[in-house]
Amino acid sequence: MMRERLHSIVFGTSTRAGKNFDLILLILILASVLVILLESVPKWRDVYGDEFFIIEWGFTILFSIEYILRIIISPKPFRYIFSFWGIVDLISIIPTFFSLFVSGYHALVAIRALRLLRIFRILKLSRFTSESQALMHSLRASYYRIVVFMVFVVMMMVLAGTAMYVIEGGQEGFDSIPSSIYWAIVTTTTVGYGDITPASDLGKILSSVMMILGYVIIAVPTGLISVEMSRYKADGRNDNLCPNCEHDNPSGSVFCNQCGAEMTDS
Amino acid sequence: MMRERLHSIVFGTSTRAGKNFDLILLILILASVLVILLESVPKWRDVYGDEFFIIEWGFTILFSIEYILRIIISPKPFRYIFSFWGIVDLISIIPTFFSLFVSGYHALVAIRALRLLRIFRILKLSRFTSESQALMHSLRASYYRIVVFMVFVVMMMVLAGTAMYVIEGGQEGFDSIPSSIYWAIVTTTTVGYGDITPASDLGKILSSVMMILGYVIIAVPTGLISVEMSRYKADGRNDNLCPNCEHDNPSGSVFCNQCGAEMTDS
Amino acid sequence: MMRERLHSIVFGTSTRAGKNFDLILLILILASVLVILLESVPKWRDVYGDEFFIIEWGFTILFSIEYILRIIISPKPFRYIFSFWGIVDLISIIPTFFSLFVSGYHALVAIRALRLLRIFRILKLSRFTSESQALMHSLRASYYRIVVFMVFVVMMMVLAGTAMYVIEGGQEGFDSIPSSIYWAIVTTTTVGYGDITPASDLGKILSSVMMILGYVIIAVPTGLISVEMSRYKADGRNDNLCPNCEHDNPSGSVFCNQCGAEMTDS
Amino acid sequence: MMRERLHSIVFGTSTRAGKNFDLILLILILASVLVILLESVPKWRDVYGDEFFIIEWGFTILFSIEYILRIIISPKPFRYIFSFWGIVDLISIIPTFFSLFVSGYHALVAIRALRLLRIFRILKLSRFTSESQALMHSLRASYYRIVVFMVFVVMMMVLAGTAMYVIEGGQEGFDSIPSSIYWAIVTTTTVGYGDITPASDLGKILSSVMMILGYVIIAVPTGLISVEMSRYKADGRNDNLCPNCEHDNPSGSVFCNQCGAEMTDS
Repeated sequence: MMRERLHSIVFGTSTRAGKNFDLILLILILASVLVILLESVPKWRDVYGDEFFIIEWGFTILFSIEYILRIIISPKPFRYIFSFWGIVDLISIIPTFFSLFVSGYHALVAIRALRLLRIFRILKLSRFTSESQALMHSLRASYYRIVVFMVFVVMMMVLAGTAMYVIEGGQEGFDSIPSSIYWAIVTTTTVGYGDITPASDLGKILSSVMMILGYVIIAVPTGLISVEMSRYKADGRNDNLCPNCEHDNPSGSVFCNQCGAEMTDS
Repeated sequence: MMRERLHSIVFGTSTRAGKNFDLILLILILASVLVILLESVPKWRDVYGDEFFIIEWGFTILFSIEYILRIIISPKPFRYIFSFWGIVDLISIIPTFFSLFVSGYHALVAIRALRLLRIFRILKLSRFTSESQALMHSLRASYYRIVVFMVFVVMMMVLAGTAMYVIEGGQEGFDSIPSSIYWAIVTTTTVGYGDITPASDLGKILSSVMMILGYVIIAVPTGLISVEMSRYKADGRNDNLCPNCEHDNPSGSVFCNQCGAEMTDS
Repeated sequence: MMRERLHSIVFGTSTRAGKNFDLILLILILASVLVILLESVPKWRDVYGDEFFIIEWGFTILFSIEYILRIIISPKPFRYIFSFWGIVDLISIIPTFFSLFVSGYHALVAIRALRLLRIFRILKLSRFTSESQALMHSLRASYYRIVVFMVFVVMMMVLAGTAMYVIEGGQEGFDSIPSSIYWAIVTTTTVGYGDITPASDLGKILSSVMMILGYVIIAVPTGLISVEMSRYKADGRNDNLCPNCEHDNPSGSVFCNQCGAEMTDS
Repeated sequence: MMRERLHSIVFGTSTRAGKNFDLILLILILASVLVILLESVPKWRDVYGDEFFIIEWGFTILFSIEYILRIIISPKPFRYIFSFWGIVDLISIIPTFFSLFVSGYHALVAIRALRLLRIFRILKLSRFTSESQALMHSLRASYYRIVVFMVFVVMMMVLAGTAMYVIEGGQEGFDSIPSSIYWAIVTTTTVGYGDITPASDLGKILSSVMMILGYVIIAVPTGLISVEMSRYKADGRNDNLCPNCEHDNPSGSVFCNQCGAEMTDS
């Protein structure tokens, strides 16, 4: 009984207590992430180093208790442990304990930010979930095309990088093919740091051609995703319902495509 | 009588006097913004500092009089004061008075630029308003999706920034997680200042992956807004209905394409 | 007779002679532009300065003769002189003569590059013209929206620039509002030179917000033009012709919307 | 018989042996490209220079044997030699032999990366091929428009570059028209290295205008390709025709929406 009650609070969001639990948890996660961000800033670490250390451990112990609690009250503990949320919950406390033995990887505790995805559990769930699904659907539907596109892009980068390596002849920034490929990626994605720039005339001409091509290439993923989104939306337009079976027919239909009844308002 | 007359001039745009009033006001606002911009340039401030000071105060007094006038002639003064335009009108004069007591925030007077939105009141109003509405509609309809997208993006930035902070090990520009997040945002949005760039090989590989992913991610908001816009347009084309069956025909139709009835207004 | 013959050669493209004339002219223009580009490079000007000078004058005299010829053989000379092509032809020879009196503006002769638009006269004309028209149509149809969008963008730039000027407090690159506005434009368009970058923490936060917003804003013109293009295309799909009058009907039509005949293949 | 067997292994992918041959070849190519990339890095070349040299020659000899084998077992050797794959196979072994006589172009052996396109032969072929075709179709269908767009863009670059050359008056980076054109391309494509930036006020104003225009121009290729893609998709959905009236119904239809006939294969 007690365990069921706790389960509905810790895992559920339907009861008031469950919602409040999730809300408080969210605020704690947010506060914890903020502390990690601030702790990494040298000037603040120098002044408040000890306080940050204590707060950080406080949060970690709290989240550890929560993690153990979740395992205990879960009817199928292993299912939780190996679920997406279970793994996220675990790796968000490990780095602090890890930092007792090895230094340098302490900052990885910011992985905890992933737990903020919980926000969608409290907010108007159905609404946000359906929006996420629409987004995910579009990305999944364009998956194969994006992979084909990516393979071509990576191949082009290797070729362009090699060409620049040959042309620029080992000048600063172009002293190896991997460096030149890095430059090609920085250029074609229009990021353009400017830490590596072509010096020779031929190099400038080649990079100009690459930029203008990149300008057109940038259109491809946009097109892919736009088309999928508009298709998904078009399928979801409930404005042409059959008077008989309420099936959503495409515009211009004279007969319903599910029950064959004539559509009164075509 | 006098007050009504004034009201139609100051608030209205239907009469010739009302239009002229708005036009002159617009020119004054534009001139005033230009003076503020020029005043902020050191070399011009050194030479014409006093002139700018006088002009600036001239404009402020003029706009103050206008503001008070608007309150007086308004039938419901408080409604104006707390309306969007009332607040804009107020905060566009406050900074100058404010600068009498505190220095440094004087430049905020450029908020006055917001008043330039008035331009849409004089120009072909209906046309521009409907275009703005179409834009606003598309943005509002994609609101939830954009928020979902933004939450994901911010979370990715935090994770990517942390990863780079760990990888680059406190090197220049990556000396704190917030700095690294700033770098991640600059990189993924393809702005790429180049003030912070990865130095290690692993850092360069991670940023290459981020750039190529960012290339695909940039497609998402474009897709969202394109789809909304095309949908709004499609929905808004109901301006050529058949007199017989009310089917929405394309412009230029002489007969309805569903029932064959002649269209009275083609 | 002679004049008519000349007219068909110089102005027309239907005869073989007319085509060849245009082709030779195009090659001359291209060569002339190349000479101007090369002449501007210091290292080549130093060596071949005199040769460039002579060639340049040769081209200018040749184009001047062509210009006068066009005026003479034109049935309505003034119509040609004040046409788009007439003005382009004139301003592509003026700078060389101009350079006799004033130095420094000589390079403006590169305006001659505009004459290269002639290329579309020789290439498969109809095809290219219709493609250009489709592009132009889309841009024109989105004209008002783009203007509304631009006014908002410019206003945002002024406000963002002012905010940064106040925040960064006259630091390097942010020493005047116009400079800060220039920075805001460089940042929001994702160009990101890196010649001016925020130094303060608050400045970095504000620019991060601006970049992410700019990421969404970049979607607006893309959406506008995509929608117009797809609409133009949709209207132009000749795949649903009426069997009676061959009018192109929208998909799903049962009756032709021009003659009212029943469509056999709906 | 032997030759036929070999042919099905080397050229085919339908048999198990053929698939394995292609898979092993792919791994060898990938390994070979990786070696080339690593060899170009100074610090690794210094240590493992000799090993890289031997491995590189090993791969080249292996690929040479494969190339000769392909010629021998091919029923029409010349057809293979002059095919796309034949040429790629050849130019991926030439640079190593070439490097015996001339140094400096050795890195061109990375052209071998092109052979990685073979990956699509092993992976779920039909699926990937149809996706590639969809991409290719969209690019080909927008070909003319993209060319028209490109000609305009190049012309604009020449004009903008010249204008900046005149305005900036031979300052650093703007010391020749070609350099200024390079700058214009870097700016308008939003790459923005920052190696060349305008110094004068007028230059900054002109580049601001260029950036905002570039912001709109970037929308054009995206629009072109999006429209083609959505059109291709729409055209390609003819997979659910009514057995009675051959109308293309949406997937999941039980009755045709035009004639009301029952659909045999829903």
